[in-house]
Amino acid sequence: MIIVMKQGSSDEEVSRVISLIEKLGYKAHLSKGVERTIIGVIGHQDKSPIQSFASLECVESVIPILKPFKLTSREMQHEPTIVDVDGVKIGGENIVIIAGPCSVESEEQITSIAREVKTTGAKILRGGAFKPRTSPYAFQGLEEEGLRLLAQAKEETGLKIVTEIVAIGDTDLLLKYVDMIQIGARNCQNYALLKAVGQTGKPILFKRGLATTVKEFLQAAEYILSEGNRNVVLCERGIRTFEDSTRNTLDLSSLALMKLWTHLPVIVDPSHGTGVRELVIPMSRAAIAAGADGLIIEVHHRPEEAFSDGPQSLKPDDFRKGFEEVRRIAAAMGRGV
Amino acid sequence: MIIVMKQGSSDEEVSRVISLIEKLGYKAHLSKGVERTIIGVIGHQDKSPIQSFASLECVESVIPILKPFKLTSREMQHEPTIVDVDGVKIGGENIVIIAGPCSVESEEQITSIAREVKTTGAKILRGGAFKPRTSPYAFQGLEEEGLRLLAQAKEETGLKIVTEIVAIGDTDLLLKYVDMIQIGARNCQNYALLKAVGQTGKPILFKRGLATTVKEFLQAAEYILSEGNRNVVLCERGIRTFEDSTRNTLDLSSLALMKLWTHLPVIVDPSHGTGVRELVIPMSRAAIAAGADGLIIEVHHRPEEAFSDGPQSLKPDDFRKGFEEVRRIAAAMGRGV
Amino acid sequence: MIIVMKQGSSDEEVSRVISLIEKLGYKAHLSKGVERTIIGVIGHQDKSPIQSFASLECVESVIPILKPFKLTSREMQHEPTIVDVDGVKIGGENIVIIAGPCSVESEEQITSIAREVKTTGAKILRGGAFKPRTSPYAFQGLEEEGLRLLAQAKEETGLKIVTEIVAIGDTDLLLKYVDMIQIGARNCQNYALLKAVGQTGKPILFKRGLATTVKEFLQAAEYILSEGNRNVVLCERGIRTFEDSTRNTLDLSSLALMKLWTHLPVIVDPSHGTGVRELVIPMSRAAIAAGADGLIIEVHHRPEEAFSDGPQSLKPDDFRKGFEEVRRIAAAMGRGV
Amino acid sequence: MIIVMKQGSSDEEVSRVISLIEKLGYKAHLSKGVERTIIGVIGHQDKSPIQSFASLECVESVIPILKPFKLTSREMQHEPTIVDVDGVKIGGENIVIIAGPCSVESEEQITSIAREVKTTGAKILRGGAFKPRTSPYAFQGLEEEGLRLLAQAKEETGLKIVTEIVAIGDTDLLLKYVDMIQIGARNCQNYALLKAVGQTGKPILFKRGLATTVKEFLQAAEYILSEGNRNVVLCERGIRTFEDSTRNTLDLSSLALMKLWTHLPVIVDPSHGTGVRELVIPMSRAAIAAGADGLIIEVHHRPEEAFSDGPQSLKPDDFRKGFEEVRRIAAAMGRGV
Repeated sequence: MIIVMKQGSSDEEVSRVISLIEKLGYKAHLSKGVERTIIGVIGHQDKSPIQSFASLECVESVIPILKPFKLTSREMQHEPTIVDVDGVKIGGENIVIIAGPCSVESEEQITSIAREVKTTGAKILRGGAFKPRTSPYAFQGLEEEGLRLLAQAKEETGLKIVTEIVAIGDTDLLLKYVDMIQIGARNCQNYALLKAVGQTGKPILFKRGLATTVKEFLQAAEYILSEGNRNVVLCERGIRTFEDSTRNTLDLSSLALMKLWTHLPVIVDPSHGTGVRELVIPMSRAAIAAGADGLIIEVHHRPEEAFSDGPQSLKPDDFRKGFEEVRRIAAAMGRGV
Repeated sequence: MIIVMKQGSSDEEVSRVISLIEKLGYKAHLSKGVERTIIGVIGHQDKSPIQSFASLECVESVIPILKPFKLTSREMQHEPTIVDVDGVKIGGENIVIIAGPCSVESEEQITSIAREVKTTGAKILRGGAFKPRTSPYAFQGLEEEGLRLLAQAKEETGLKIVTEIVAIGDTDLLLKYVDMIQIGARNCQNYALLKAVGQTGKPILFKRGLATTVKEFLQAAEYILSEGNRNVVLCERGIRTFEDSTRNTLDLSSLALMKLWTHLPVIVDPSHGTGVRELVIPMSRAAIAAGADGLIIEVHHRPEEAFSDGPQSLKPDDFRKGFEEVRRIAAAMGRGV
Repeated sequence: MIIVMKQGSSDEEVSRVISLIEKLGYKAHLSKGVERTIIGVIGHQDKSPIQSFASLECVESVIPILKPFKLTSREMQHEPTIVDVDGVKIGGENIVIIAGPCSVESEEQITSIAREVKTTGAKILRGGAFKPRTSPYAFQGLEEEGLRLLAQAKEETGLKIVTEIVAIGDTDLLLKYVDMIQIGARNCQNYALLKAVGQTGKPILFKRGLATTVKEFLQAAEYILSEGNRNVVLCERGIRTFEDSTRNTLDLSSLALMKLWTHLPVIVDPSHGTGVRELVIPMSRAAIAAGADGLIIEVHHRPEEAFSDGPQSLKPDDFRKGFEEVRRIAAAMGRGV
Repeated sequence: MIIVMKQGSSDEEVSRVISLIEKLGYKAHLSKGVERTIIGVIGHQDKSPIQSFASLECVESVIPILKPFKLTSREMQHEPTIVDVDGVKIGGENIVIIAGPCSVESEEQITSIAREVKTTGAKILRGGAFKPRTSPYAFQGLEEEGLRLLAQAKEETGLKIVTEIVAIGDTDLLLKYVDMIQIGARNCQNYALLKAVGQTGKPILFKRGLATTVKEFLQAAEYILSEGNRNVVLCERGIRTFEDSTRNTLDLSSLALMKLWTHLPVIVDPSHGTGVRELVIPMSRAAIAAGADGLIIEVHHRPEEAFSDGPQSLKPDDFRKGFEEVRRIAAAMGRGV
């Protein structure tokens, strides 16, 4: 932390701030400039209330120097983490494609989509059983029946299964059925839920919130890691901006930045990231070229009849075509799919 | 819903869309313009998958016509709802001030602040016992001990008590101690938690999320109301924007809009809304002038030693001064404090 | 400036950075922390390329310490600037109301609105003669004829005149007719235009851009002041955010912050700031309570027939009613209107 | 346009709106739903004030149906436009790389960088002679001397030249020296400047504004095209969002969307788009994979001594390495560089 004193602050004020710093067990390092006096605070400051010094009359601002995350940081672990989802490895040389419908709607629906995406080359099946919908009157998911249908699709196709958790109380139920647990964007800073999944050891697909900065996202992931679960796959899925022709703004610069800052794998969701079917394949290619370790894509046989997110779902034919294009970009990046 | 067909769509395509609409039980109303054909969908469309029609090749866009909330809407209930917090009424003629520290830190701290804010004129005491902190290494709250200290402060001062809930499992514990339960900004779309507090009947202080539009916020409140709990007080607490000289951008236009659209009381949090101590009083005055039903303000004896949110906390003297200014604005609005 | 070295940077790297700093004529001040080494740069750094040090391999970040504006700052001039618009004083005890239509449309229109707003209590008449419209096919203004009509309305009513400039080449024309020149939001960082009006000495109504931070806005104002024109009135008119139920998000926290940081008067435009007629009066009250020195409000006899901005224009009756409410809030603030 | 009447509006009100529509020369098409009555407005509505109907008491909202741009639209011209910059074609099969320093600083600087980027494979040289800087005290460019140095670099290397215009008065000067004129982000909605360059016929490199939506950007381009100049290359260069670890958020979804909506070529500026040197190459690859027709990249020999934008400039070696990576992605897209 660096404390910037207000212009014209007196020696007494500077001394008072230094003594407050020392009272907290840190060392202070004084530096007088032409227009401002600054005081460096030296020592490990994890739980420090030094940010609160900004409330002192004589202090202009308090500036943090260190990045606020640790376990997720490349400084802590240089080698990339590879997350093993029941045999499917995310974060290694190969790019992993997760595909499936937004919601599990029926046995016929999930089974037929699972077969299609398996044939095309997907390794993991997605499908919501518990749906966090903006309106309480929208379809809320098939719940345990949905989980059962996912497990059945796994048995038939060999695809691994990922589904979203929306309440701590469902943890045991999900553990029974699925290979990977998704934390959705709206729960990105639901720390109680993060701690709960952090205690499971299960691979976690962790989606960035709509208004979560990269620094906050990595700190939120830190909640999962600090409970002992290091099997975390981060997912960029678009942020909320003023642009209204796409559902969200897919923030691939942040993806590229995360690949520099953290050892965790990072994948991209171009379906929610854009909300527009025609943009899913271009942004899938772009994500791989930017360095993503995988993609999660919504696929539906009859998007116009989907219970949710129809406008952004690919039909199986388009998914197949997109998969080929992604494969070519991956090859240009020296990676397989 | 209105369906806009793509330029040059054929009669067959139009007929196909109409028959899909009718298959879902709605009536279709065709209108051919110079450059576009549009189809109105007539009938109640709460759970309708018509939004998914946007995925049809021949459809350009699907445009919703109705506001997406009901129970919270002025159209449903014209008279304002008055929420009774153990005798303190929010949403009526008088403005209610909630005040207290960000976190409960110790018996001495909470008791002395409670006495001060009571003397000044606050009616409800705030104080966090369970803290949703961005970093897992920051102070997480005193938990049940914090609740106990709040209850003790209530006993001594007569102030009502509000504190934040962060996990469904804590509901019973909070019900034992507090008069009002707060849902924080980060849990604004944690629907499982909203449903849980919706089942309690307790007054809820419901904070807008950092990236939640007014329409989404009212739909989220709808989750609480639709479980049977109509004692909901909305709280504007700043949204996330590009402006970086304030912690958030306090969105008073949305406050004024909510006062038009919903019968629920709406209060303002100028402390989190700005994050800057010097702005708390000006924005308190502005909130009341814009039509707010109350304020929630952070007060701390020694902000520079606060475990959290020191930079935005008022000292008791400043709070007293601000209270007088708010009283004058309230009087100009024909309201008491 | 403070330079933060990367973790593990060597003594050679630190020495190299220090020698680069000294080569530029500054002094360097070294501070070694537990996890990072930081180097303070001491000396006046107005035109310094030190920000570019961030491109050195061994540097993690470069952090500015000083606010980046000078002539506009309270540190430079503590007393508030009062701008004199042909006798009408903005920035003093009294609040000044500017009112009129978005565009000058006809003699009948501008004269009748001028009479109305004069009677109600406005001191300055607004009206666009050159309109910067999003679409090239929308109404672009009456140009010089519009200026002539404004001057005629001034002669009849005694109201002072403000209108927007959109091109440097129009400067002389505007100087002939108007008392105050407006720079619109879209030209907030059109520095060539700012320099041009900076050379005139005329009072300038300077609107914040849609995505301009407070710090950038004050630096942009600095372009006008540094050309010798100190008659600048700042105007908060809403910023662009994700919220889509209002046209913009009126950022009153930034208004309150500007009142702390700069000696220049600051007024508010609640018409563009919200884009919704029903919100104009509540936000006018809020602006005054937050500390604004004035308001600029769109008024039109038949908003439904306005050539531009009809949805946010008040009818004369509503303007009168709002004026009374503003007067009451101003009185509570100890100010007249 | 579609007009949505308020709930419970009377037959008289509906009739009044219809007669207002007909008075303006349009046809009205009435549709009564269960909860709302809507009225379609039929006829070409380019300059129509129908948006202002939103100010009628009985009208809830006015919803536009058509995209608000024409000459730039794929509906108007399906075939892609290829812009010829003195022999270099942008928008065809080959990807075009524009490279060079942020500012022209000296003869030695611009000549040596020009040679480097030419050897690597760039086709056009960038370099600012007139710089729109946030602070009036920052380096403002070498002006005509800068243009002369650019022309000299062209003569020596054969690279074409692009530089930014900041004032209408400089148009003739730029026409004398350069092959392509850049409109910068801050002037994206400076319509007077757009009209001026629209009258020249010179190729225009048109950068999206920091808070300009895709729809607004295409309408702004329409100002240039409607003056008769169709040689417009659009440039996505990042938008302003809440994310603060990158300078801007590079919005590649909007790039992909523009490739669908307009026939104009679209290129990407990953230097300003991210502001972080390490992200320039990943985002260059991503841009090409998303469908960009070219890139504009800042290159500097000694970024740490650059007069502007050092932190985001590549050194020539990194540029060479990045160029190879871009070439591989382009090949996977079936394009050359």
